[in-house]
Amino acid sequence: MDRIFPYDSVELSEDARELVILDQNVLPTNEVFLKLTTAQEIFFAITLLKVRGAPAIGVTAALGLAMCINRASVYSVEQLEEEFLNTKKYLNISRPTAVNLMWALDRMERKYYEVKSKLKPGSDGVQIIKDALVEEARAIKSEDIEMCKKIGENGFKLLTPGVRILTHCNAGHLATSRFGTALAPIYIAQQMGYAPKVYAGETRPMLQGSRLTAYELTKAKVDTTLICDSMASIVMKEGRVDVVFVGCDRIAANGDVANKVGTSSLAILAKHYGIPFYVLGPTSTIDFTCPSGENIIIEERPSYEISDTYFSNPVTPKGVKFYNPAFDVTPAELITGIVTEKGIFKPSELKQLFEI
Amino acid sequence: MDRIFPYDSVELSEDARELVILDQNVLPTNEVFLKLTTAQEIFFAITLLKVRGAPAIGVTAALGLAMCINRASVYSVEQLEEEFLNTKKYLNISRPTAVNLMWALDRMERKYYEVKSKLKPGSDGVQIIKDALVEEARAIKSEDIEMCKKIGENGFKLLTPGVRILTHCNAGHLATSRFGTALAPIYIAQQMGYAPKVYAGETRPMLQGSRLTAYELTKAKVDTTLICDSMASIVMKEGRVDVVFVGCDRIAANGDVANKVGTSSLAILAKHYGIPFYVLGPTSTIDFTCPSGENIIIEERPSYEISDTYFSNPVTPKGVKFYNPAFDVTPAELITGIVTEKGIFKPSELKQLFEI
Repeated sequence: MDRIFPYDSVELSEDARELVILDQNVLPTNEVFLKLTTAQEIFFAITLLKVRGAPAIGVTAALGLAMCINRASVYSVEQLEEEFLNTKKYLNISRPTAVNLMWALDRMERKYYEVKSKLKPGSDGVQIIKDALVEEARAIKSEDIEMCKKIGENGFKLLTPGVRILTHCNAGHLATSRFGTALAPIYIAQQMGYAPKVYAGETRPMLQGSRLTAYELTKAKVDTTLICDSMASIVMKEGRVDVVFVGCDRIAANGDVANKVGTSSLAILAKHYGIPFYVLGPTSTIDFTCPSGENIIIEERPSYEISDTYFSNPVTPKGVKFYNPAFDVTPAELITGIVTEKGIFKPSELKQLFEI
Repeated sequence: MDRIFPYDSVELSEDARELVILDQNVLPTNEVFLKLTTAQEIFFAITLLKVRGAPAIGVTAALGLAMCINRASVYSVEQLEEEFLNTKKYLNISRPTAVNLMWALDRMERKYYEVKSKLKPGSDGVQIIKDALVEEARAIKSEDIEMCKKIGENGFKLLTPGVRILTHCNAGHLATSRFGTALAPIYIAQQMGYAPKVYAGETRPMLQGSRLTAYELTKAKVDTTLICDSMASIVMKEGRVDVVFVGCDRIAANGDVANKVGTSSLAILAKHYGIPFYVLGPTSTIDFTCPSGENIIIEERPSYEISDTYFSNPVTPKGVKFYNPAFDVTPAELITGIVTEKGIFKPSELKQLFEI
């Protein structure tokens, strides 16, 4: 799989003193790269959704933490440890519900203590730890890229020349370190000359489909048609869709999948019209401590996302209430398959992965 | 059924020289009443969606035509007839797909020729025709109000105290002469102290749900919660909805229903979750010349509705394609019942109405 874009959504500079991110808030009209050098800047980049997508957030946190520690003017391992733990704690709350964020930061902490425990007397402990953290963060990103590649290759097996795919939200290059999850097979298909066609739902209220998915697909010259989320039914009915590909935020042990609100609706429609429905994501998204979708608490987002964000004038009257769940749960029985870096599984087969 | 609002969306002045409409383009933030006195003003009010909703458009055209003719400075029936036919022809193309528009204007033309044929020699033909046209247009509006009342009463029979209703687009007071179709039973329930709760889908791309349905329901103090269209599935799954009520633009002889895009999606979801799904509209919406939904041509609207309208900045990249169908067709087998002024019918029972 060749590179699609000359840049990743998150990059650590050669000297590990700057984190460069593509500001996703001003896409698709402006491509602005932000150079982040402090923990505060990283915190707000995540909180304000300048960088989003579970894998991309995890990588940003890990690289960001490594960068902050690398820049820290400290003269002892004790000082370094204080700085490390404070920065980690701070970044950890930038988006409380992102599992990858915590996972990546915890992995950095394990690496910290592992390296510290092996320090030899008289060695430059500060520099050794700094270097090891940068290396670990870069490894997290490399592994994410490799994982997306493999998800792409596995998903690609489901595609044929001229295939028409419906997707929702953004599970692409921008949401990961590179290539994406749900969009990765599409990029391979494009490179293989399959000329795939994509229908992207705009994904209200935050328009990740319009602003991000349509942006990255058209940039890669993929034939992309944008629809309102309510139009998925007619598009399927008219025979314009061969397969549905979506990402995932959390997969329960029984195969129920939490993803951007609207996903369950697409799964029900796909079943009605007899169209296969695939969820694409790394096995790390499977939460074996979560028995079923019933145990997933749905985050409720602020009402201004529906009433105000992106609009030039208010479009809702005073006195109306709002309900703005960020995710919904698609039950396992509606899912044709879950495409991971380890292969394609039926939701009921996930338990095998647990036993391995 | 008591009046809900002190004004109708379309009103002809006492002297039949002014048509007053509530400008639906600037709702919900501004309540602006426009006084229309020329055919051009009426044409653009319809074209630019200042007045919309199939029944309201028909009434606007009829009252507007009567008003224009009433204002015409003509000195013979021949001159009047030329004026009448030209104005009718002009208004008729203001929104080519609106069946009610053509129906109302054709009825005015029949009345014109009926009155003309009965004119007695020496009588003031011009004034007699003018008066008859104003009377006919007012009758069209009165009948529309009566019809909505009856639809409301029939639909109300399906409701119980505390009922929770999901609706889509705007099939309310603003879309008709008064009361609405899908919303009429809700207004009765509110007046009867049933304290109904309504979930309104925002209805992308033109946001009739946010701007119009939420506006009129909250104004009538109905407990209203706005959701994005993609959230209907989670709202149904969470047990928040007892019944779905939607309007209709055209009903085929076999009971298939064309309505605002997104309606078929709600019907499929309702069936999946075991929630009754009702279509509300006058029997005049049934097109017995149209055997099934397959014969209904779906109007495609301009792409700027998805990419630009209402947004402060462009939210879509260059190079992306758009698909913007205005309607979709809900197959008869997904519809629990069709609520008309003549009663509630199963889609398969519509043929009886034809035979009557």
